[in-house]
Amino acid sequence: MAFQNGNSKKKLDVVVVGGGLVGSLEAIYLAKRGHRVSLYEYREDIRNTPNVRGRSINLALSVRGRKALKGVGVEDHIVNEHGIPMRARMIHRPDGTTYSIPYDARTNQCIYSVGRNYLNGILLKESENYDNVEKYFNHKLVESNFQKGSLTFVKMDTKETVQVKADLIIGADGAFSAVRKEMMKQPLFDFSQQYIEHGYLELCIPADENGGFQMPPNFLHIWPRGNFMMIALPNQDCSWTVTLFMPFNHFKNIDTEEKLLEFFGKYFPDSIPLIGEKKLIEDFFGGSPSALVTVKCRPYHVHDKALIIGDAAHAVVPFYGQGMNAGFEDCSILNDLFQKHNDNIPNILQEFSSTRWQDAFAISDLAMYNYIEMRDLVTRPSYRLRKAVDDFIFWLLPNVWVPLYNSVTFSTMPYSQCVKNRQWQNKVLIMAIAALGLLSFIIFYYSK
Amino acid sequence: MAFQNGNSKKKLDVVVVGGGLVGSLEAIYLAKRGHRVSLYEYREDIRNTPNVRGRSINLALSVRGRKALKGVGVEDHIVNEHGIPMRARMIHRPDGTTYSIPYDARTNQCIYSVGRNYLNGILLKESENYDNVEKYFNHKLVESNFQKGSLTFVKMDTKETVQVKADLIIGADGAFSAVRKEMMKQPLFDFSQQYIEHGYLELCIPADENGGFQMPPNFLHIWPRGNFMMIALPNQDCSWTVTLFMPFNHFKNIDTEEKLLEFFGKYFPDSIPLIGEKKLIEDFFGGSPSALVTVKCRPYHVHDKALIIGDAAHAVVPFYGQGMNAGFEDCSILNDLFQKHNDNIPNILQEFSSTRWQDAFAISDLAMYNYIEMRDLVTRPSYRLRKAVDDFIFWLLPNVWVPLYNSVTFSTMPYSQCVKNRQWQNKVLIMAIAALGLLSFIIFYYSK
Repeated sequence: MAFQNGNSKKKLDVVVVGGGLVGSLEAIYLAKRGHRVSLYEYREDIRNTPNVRGRSINLALSVRGRKALKGVGVEDHIVNEHGIPMRARMIHRPDGTTYSIPYDARTNQCIYSVGRNYLNGILLKESENYDNVEKYFNHKLVESNFQKGSLTFVKMDTKETVQVKADLIIGADGAFSAVRKEMMKQPLFDFSQQYIEHGYLELCIPADENGGFQMPPNFLHIWPRGNFMMIALPNQDCSWTVTLFMPFNHFKNIDTEEKLLEFFGKYFPDSIPLIGEKKLIEDFFGGSPSALVTVKCRPYHVHDKALIIGDAAHAVVPFYGQGMNAGFEDCSILNDLFQKHNDNIPNILQEFSSTRWQDAFAISDLAMYNYIEMRDLVTRPSYRLRKAVDDFIFWLLPNVWVPLYNSVTFSTMPYSQCVKNRQWQNKVLIMAIAALGLLSFIIFYYSK
Repeated sequence: MAFQNGNSKKKLDVVVVGGGLVGSLEAIYLAKRGHRVSLYEYREDIRNTPNVRGRSINLALSVRGRKALKGVGVEDHIVNEHGIPMRARMIHRPDGTTYSIPYDARTNQCIYSVGRNYLNGILLKESENYDNVEKYFNHKLVESNFQKGSLTFVKMDTKETVQVKADLIIGADGAFSAVRKEMMKQPLFDFSQQYIEHGYLELCIPADENGGFQMPPNFLHIWPRGNFMMIALPNQDCSWTVTLFMPFNHFKNIDTEEKLLEFFGKYFPDSIPLIGEKKLIEDFFGGSPSALVTVKCRPYHVHDKALIIGDAAHAVVPFYGQGMNAGFEDCSILNDLFQKHNDNIPNILQEFSSTRWQDAFAISDLAMYNYIEMRDLVTRPSYRLRKAVDDFIFWLLPNVWVPLYNSVTFSTMPYSQCVKNRQWQNKVLIMAIAALGLLSFIIFYYSK
């Protein structure tokens, strides 16, 4: 491959640990810059495995993710051929009636529902266009020495040990990252993992007998019920991936078919005929709820040799639909830094590590906040009033007043800036209300 | 040994991992209840090792610690024969002048400066009075299976492997606990470690030529300097353990003897003749600053078989002088639970785990807050005014209005309650100020 920028710079040996969404995208970015990339993945090649249940939440592709995919030339294909646009939230009331809240009333932008496995497959396939990418599946990382840049993998089938050396190690191995576990041994490494009391369980609404959607497809459907909620995202085959989020002890209490049907009959009655009673019982009792964790840490690098990105660096709860997007954004930011620092690894890692955490912490906190918004606040008049006000000013002053959700989802404004922006908007609104109050008082006083 | 409560309950095999302050106290408590205790410590017996530098901060014994020591009958000995009472903070201004702020102006209670090694030695020695305690030094925990209650240690000298089984495993192995590391593998384990940007370095003010104290001994001396500070605690031999807390990069910038003397000459001029120029240079460049970490986690137990206490469960920064006291309090709380649940391990662990974390989190946050108070706020008029107000109301209404520092240090009110108490006091003060303002206005208005 020719170098993207035509420089005669040194080719680096880079090991990417983790062949999931972020790892495979990062491998392509690095290959595109001419580096020799070895991608190691603990699991089998996902393209050879049947669809795995329980691995599909959180795949709402938005602007940050799209920009990163565009950077390696796969955005169009994914969005146009395989993404299902969702233009609004459709809220299901307990009585089965619905109403919708558009994501972007002004310019009608949307988020795209994309299957995780499908997207992962596309990225792995894309990497085959680069002859400087080698992929090793069924390889488990068992030891690492970041100072020396050496890693030891065990081949899952033969139990053979493989030693590799690299100029740069990138850990994109998810929320329970083995690379990060090794990094934790360095001094002054801040780390936190926090589980929420809610677990999630996946259900499915199949296509109808004509192979069509059973619900209007261009929506993210939400059944907000205060302390718990259910959501549904459309799939390419006209089925829906339905996810129930609920405190673990609620799950535990529903231990008979009667209780399950009673529960669904009370809170999600309109979903029962869509899912089908038999299938509901089967899926509910066939799986057990999975946990949701937030991981924050810093720094993201060590010894000018190793870096973590994606969920390994900042796993977030899925309620802002930004987990994958933030991970993809890591790849495009990193690519910009490779360009800026002309592939000088120490400078790249230093800058990524010292700047990215603020945005990662910000989206982490936003996602945790949205966890309450989606299941509860969204139904309240105060939420809808604020949204109406925001949307109105946004319509009036589109360059000045971008509502929080829009700046997070439909812009590449740094997440931390989105938060600051919102705080500024809050201040302005409070002052405006105070001014209005004062004005009313003055008018009232003089018109007596 | 006879059982304390005379019941014919089952003797348990308990392994305590860690023979530091909290581990050795816990071993005594368990032995006192008649259980068979094996205490495993990674290091040599501290009684056989010369004084270790850099292990003495944070040893201000206060009411919670004293209560726990009293429970095994060693409080009097420690406090009366080896503790040096500190009745006030003595603040050193940059010009060398001082003033003092009493800890408890009302009843003159005090905290006690106690040497870590000395205290640890006393507790280990006390455990020898129980023939149901076995101690194993130089044993490093290398593997554990909490479900089975089995642990594997390696003897540091012979490299021999030792397998042990226990009905209960108690990890009291400090901020970097090996027991906790194993616990982290359980699902839904919340964990955070956070380093502060300040490191600490120990210096020493020796006794004077007559073997006496060079500064008034019944004080905790503080040189607060905004973003950094120095403190000194008195030792039995009339020397002082001096600790300099400062951002790591400040330490790094002081890289020549000239810079060091200039720095001390500017900020701590009165300390130079006390420490001695030569000794100051020697000690400052002889060591490197150590890091300070806050650890929060929960739950504290797993599988009804293993529990962590002390720093292993809740390492805090040393600025409230409560690290050891909180660890000792764990032991006395645990002992109360053994009594309450008649040595039923599952119930004891369950209750400890589900209640103690709130207080641990609270003292952790308070210690972090005091980190700012001690080095900065303490010098401000607003701080001294609030303290004067608090002390006055405390004097007026001693049962109603206990200031925060006093409730933390001189009571056994749960830490989380101390915090709530303070929040209530803040509210009352704000309302009182508002009422006073209103009253002044009314008086002013009618007296016109």
